[in-house]
Amino acid sequence: MENLTNYSRLSLNQITTNSWRLPEAIDGCVRAQVPSIGIWRNKIAEVGLEMSQRLLRDAGLRVSSVCRGGMFPASTREERAERIADNRKAIEEAAALGADTLVLVCGPAPNRDLKSARQMVEDAIAQLVPYARKCKVKLGIEPLHPMLAAERCCITSLEEANNLADKFDRETVGIVVDVYHVWWDAMLEREIKRAAGRILGFHMSDWLVPTPDMLLGRGMMGDGCIDIRSIRRLVEDAGYRGFIEVEIFNQKIWDEPGDEVLNRMKERYLSCV
Amino acid sequence: MENLTNYSRLSLNQITTNSWRLPEAIDGCVRAQVPSIGIWRNKIAEVGLEMSQRLLRDAGLRVSSVCRGGMFPASTREERAERIADNRKAIEEAAALGADTLVLVCGPAPNRDLKSARQMVEDAIAQLVPYARKCKVKLGIEPLHPMLAAERCCITSLEEANNLADKFDRETVGIVVDVYHVWWDAMLEREIKRAAGRILGFHMSDWLVPTPDMLLGRGMMGDGCIDIRSIRRLVEDAGYRGFIEVEIFNQKIWDEPGDEVLNRMKERYLSCV
Repeated sequence: MENLTNYSRLSLNQITTNSWRLPEAIDGCVRAQVPSIGIWRNKIAEVGLEMSQRLLRDAGLRVSSVCRGGMFPASTREERAERIADNRKAIEEAAALGADTLVLVCGPAPNRDLKSARQMVEDAIAQLVPYARKCKVKLGIEPLHPMLAAERCCITSLEEANNLADKFDRETVGIVVDVYHVWWDAMLEREIKRAAGRILGFHMSDWLVPTPDMLLGRGMMGDGCIDIRSIRRLVEDAGYRGFIEVEIFNQKIWDEPGDEVLNRMKERYLSCV
Repeated sequence: MENLTNYSRLSLNQITTNSWRLPEAIDGCVRAQVPSIGIWRNKIAEVGLEMSQRLLRDAGLRVSSVCRGGMFPASTREERAERIADNRKAIEEAAALGADTLVLVCGPAPNRDLKSARQMVEDAIAQLVPYARKCKVKLGIEPLHPMLAAERCCITSLEEANNLADKFDRETVGIVVDVYHVWWDAMLEREIKRAAGRILGFHMSDWLVPTPDMLLGRGMMGDGCIDIRSIRRLVEDAGYRGFIEVEIFNQKIWDEPGDEVLNRMKERYLSCV
C-alpha cells in the first residue's frame, strides 16, 4: 500500500467544522483545496437545496455523501411511515447534489426489543431501494459503535451490516466503514473482505484515550489509538478507491477556527491515513 | 423459561457494594440471604487470604468467582512474564476460596496493534492452563464492551471469546457472559448457543440511557434498556444453571448504604432477570 501523497481522495465531512454553515464550509474546502465534502441535511436546510446546489457547482466541489438517512425504528406504523417519507426526501437531496452515497444511520430500538428494531430497519430499506435506484442514489448502511446502540443505531458491527446489505441489490445498497465505529472488531479483516465491491464510504477520526465524551469525544487522526493505516489497507485490498471522509464529532475541535482544523486534517491525512 | 422465584442462584459481585470491605460484604450477604459472592482480589488483599477463607467458611457463602485475572498484553517480555506470575497467584487465590471461576479481563493493547495484543492473550492463557487445571480452577474469558477496548480488554465480542476458548481444553477454559458487555450484539443468539457447555458465569447490570460514565455508569437491572430476560433464556437454553452475579460499576450506587442496594438488587432479580 502506498502512502497518500496528495488530497485527491480527501473529503471534509462537514460535521468536523460544525460551527460553519454550508457556504463557509464550501469556501473553506476551496481555500484548503479539499476536493470533496460530506454534507449534513440540517446544513442543507439552513440555506435551501437550490442554493446548496449552486454553491457546490460554483465551487466545483464533489459531494462524497449526504448525512444522514435512517432512524427507521419507531413504535407505531405511522411514525415508521414518516421516517420512510423523510428518507425519500433525503434520497432526493442526495440526487440533487450528485452525492455518491446517502449514509444510513439506522436508528435505535424504541424499546428493549433489538430484534424487532433490526427487522424494522430491513423493512424500511426494502421500501426505499426502488426509489433510491430510480434516483441513482446509493444507500450506505453504516454500522455504528456498540456504545451508540441504545441512542443512535441498532446496527453495531460490520458482520451485521454485511448480512443486512446481502439482502439487497448490490448496485444500490452497500456499507460505510468508519474506523471509529469498527476498529475494535476482531472480525474486521474477514468482514471488510466480505464487503468487497460494496464499500460506499470510508470515514476517519480517532479513538481518544480516555474518551472525553461518548458522542462528542472523537479525535483527530493520529491523536488516538486506532491503527488507521492498517484499516485503509484492508479497505483498499477490498477494492475501495473512493473518497476518504474526515468526520469528527468533538466540541473542542468545533470551537477552533475552521481553517486551522482543515490544515491539521490535511497534515494528518498524509501522515496518519 | 420460568421466572426466578428464589435467590438460590443469586450472587453479589462485590464491586456492586464497593464501599464495603470483604467482612462487611460477607455480613451483608448473610443478612440478605444471598447465598454467593463474587470477590475482587484487592478486597482479598485488604484482609488477607486466610482471613478471607475463614470469613467465607464461617458465613457459609459460596464464591461464584474471583475477579480478576487477565491484563496480559504488555510491551516487554518481562512485563508479560510478571502478568503471568500474577495470574498464577490469582489462580491460587481462586483455588483457596473454592471459587467456581477466575474471571479473565484480558487487557488492552499496549500500542495500536490489537492483533498482537490478542496473540499475547492467547499465549498467556496457554501458559496458564496447566496450572489452572492442576489447581482445579476454571478460567472464564469475559469479552468486554467494545467501548472498553482501548483501556480494559481487547477481547470485545462473544464470537471472539468463543474463538479463543475453542483453542483450549473445555474443562478448564470457558467464557463469562455479562449482559452489559454483549447486549448490543446481533450475533448473541448464535454465539451463546455456540458457548453451550462452557459458560462459566452470567453477570447482570443494565445499560442506562443516557450512560452517565463509560466506566462507572452501569445501572441496576430494570433501570436501563437491556432485555435481560431474553438473554437469560439464551444462556439457559445453552444449558447454564450456575450463579447469576450482579456486578454494577456505578459511583452513585456505591455511595448508597449497602443493605439498601442488596434489597433493591433482590427485588430486581426477581422482577427483571
